[in-house]
Amino acid sequence: MPFVQSRSLRVDIEALAYLDQTRLPQVEQWEACNTPEAWQAAVKRLAIRGAPLIGLSAAFVLAQYAARNPQGNWQGVSDNLRATRPTAVNLMYCLDAMEACFDQGVEALWARATALFEEDRALCQAMAERGADLLRDGDRVLTHCNTGALATAGVGTAIGAFSVANTRGTKLHVYVNETRPLLQGGRLTAWEMADLDIDYQLICDSMAASLMAAGKVDKIMVGADRICANGDFANKVGTYMLAVLAHYHQVPFYVVAPYTTVDTACATGAEIPIEQRDGSEVRGVTGAFGEASWAPKDAPVWNPAFDVTPATLVTGWVLDTGVFDQDAIARGEHCRER
Amino acid sequence: MPFVQSRSLRVDIEALAYLDQTRLPQVEQWEACNTPEAWQAAVKRLAIRGAPLIGLSAAFVLAQYAARNPQGNWQGVSDNLRATRPTAVNLMYCLDAMEACFDQGVEALWARATALFEEDRALCQAMAERGADLLRDGDRVLTHCNTGALATAGVGTAIGAFSVANTRGTKLHVYVNETRPLLQGGRLTAWEMADLDIDYQLICDSMAASLMAAGKVDKIMVGADRICANGDFANKVGTYMLAVLAHYHQVPFYVVAPYTTVDTACATGAEIPIEQRDGSEVRGVTGAFGEASWAPKDAPVWNPAFDVTPATLVTGWVLDTGVFDQDAIARGEHCRER
Repeated sequence: MPFVQSRSLRVDIEALAYLDQTRLPQVEQWEACNTPEAWQAAVKRLAIRGAPLIGLSAAFVLAQYAARNPQGNWQGVSDNLRATRPTAVNLMYCLDAMEACFDQGVEALWARATALFEEDRALCQAMAERGADLLRDGDRVLTHCNTGALATAGVGTAIGAFSVANTRGTKLHVYVNETRPLLQGGRLTAWEMADLDIDYQLICDSMAASLMAAGKVDKIMVGADRICANGDFANKVGTYMLAVLAHYHQVPFYVVAPYTTVDTACATGAEIPIEQRDGSEVRGVTGAFGEASWAPKDAPVWNPAFDVTPATLVTGWVLDTGVFDQDAIARGEHCRER
Repeated sequence: MPFVQSRSLRVDIEALAYLDQTRLPQVEQWEACNTPEAWQAAVKRLAIRGAPLIGLSAAFVLAQYAARNPQGNWQGVSDNLRATRPTAVNLMYCLDAMEACFDQGVEALWARATALFEEDRALCQAMAERGADLLRDGDRVLTHCNTGALATAGVGTAIGAFSVANTRGTKLHVYVNETRPLLQGGRLTAWEMADLDIDYQLICDSMAASLMAAGKVDKIMVGADRICANGDFANKVGTYMLAVLAHYHQVPFYVVAPYTTVDTACATGAEIPIEQRDGSEVRGVTGAFGEASWAPKDAPVWNPAFDVTPATLVTGWVLDTGVFDQDAIARGEHCRER
């Protein structure tokens, strides 16, 4: 069993462990994850979250299962892991890579999972450098959800760009959308901004429009759960709202993601399945910070976890392989074999 | 002392009382309000809320003060009441009317406050009828914040239109924005929809864009805190976001308000002061439902209570005096003497 460690995932001789992201920032608690079922439950409740991290942790869980169950149904387990989060493509990418090693045995699976982990770390650095190249001293940048070290093996995607810019001495002011219903912005991104010592302000998602109208947003950078062949992409619900607002206010809008997020088999955003989540998430909040439910107990709710942003609203796709504009995307340059 | 009673305000022989809207829908608790200071505190914490209701309750509080303090500084008290909520114009309208009676004594002040209350009830009915005329059977209508019987002396403004349509047998499906940070949609509008037996679904504010992209919103109706001479208007933060999204998705966007919300002295939205509120509202939630704070304790916050929607994004202004389109607004028809 290999040893790897990132901000929110640890694999060592004993077990796989994850930092429970539902409990941040109040409590930093690591949880063991020693079965595919435990992993599925953790992903469902967003204790493990972030498209890259979900894929990487799934790879390790599959290797672990194979090591403990040499005669087990590896393919069946992989299928179950795959079905847990239908929107993100990184999960599919990682499991495809793992399945390709099934006939090489357990050691190969551990090696493959570790390689995926190391690859993601390198991808983060590469795209964060490219993203940071787009940021100017004094820029006021708006972001949504959480796309930093917690969500990946490395520095992150959109937040990775802020982090690298900050390291370079580029002074930023980051506006953080709280990202209802699960508050990944208010809990995790706010915490990471403070941790990185980046100047920031937290806002409610509905306030982003006012900021743009006041000319207070120079750029928007977000992550992605899946990028289609035509450049459409899925990300945390609220991203599409930002893209429309950016278009109206002529604010440059960038999506930052590794090439592993590109799904060339998915022609357009219309093909991306969108997970509907439980209404209780909208009727209140729950976490290590406590629990509160304010809506009528039986209030009917519509609660899509993700939304789809059409390519026409995107200024640039910042991948590890390059920064692509609308023309490059139309030519499919982001889909090229590496 | 007169007797008046609405869904959230009661004036009787004993005292002025308000339904504490911070405690809804969990607790229906009436609170006495017997001093200008108590009223100011109640408005600041949004226990009394809704632009019309704030103005009406201020008028009664001023009459009450005058009755109890014949030699008191009525003008000074009126000035203090006026300064409590700088964005809403109904408050200014009501206090102007009250001040005009100062030289006629206490009985005239009670009579004036009662007349304002009765006027608002009639205005609600008139604009709600006009709003309902715009609604078709099967319409899926999106709204923001709370604009119903709780916020006015009568059936409300935007919700008043839904209520009248419902009474007429026009079947609606109402999408309710939860309206962060203070959750007037999730708490109050959801409760009123259930109370009125109108089919509805609660969503997070960031999900409205996805609904529109999916073609699930036929119309948007919201209230207003102040409408300018040029048709720009201020309303609860998040309204401007909806207006931009409606424009992009070609969804008709209506503002429903009484003529008392029109401030002819305010040329454009740029002149409307926007109240900044405490950061704790964005770092968490609090109410009769409980309390939770999820963001880092010292997280810096930007928290405007209102935003301004430019006239160019509005399909129609539904006032008690008529439904005005862009051309009528440009001609200033909504500003005409009644």
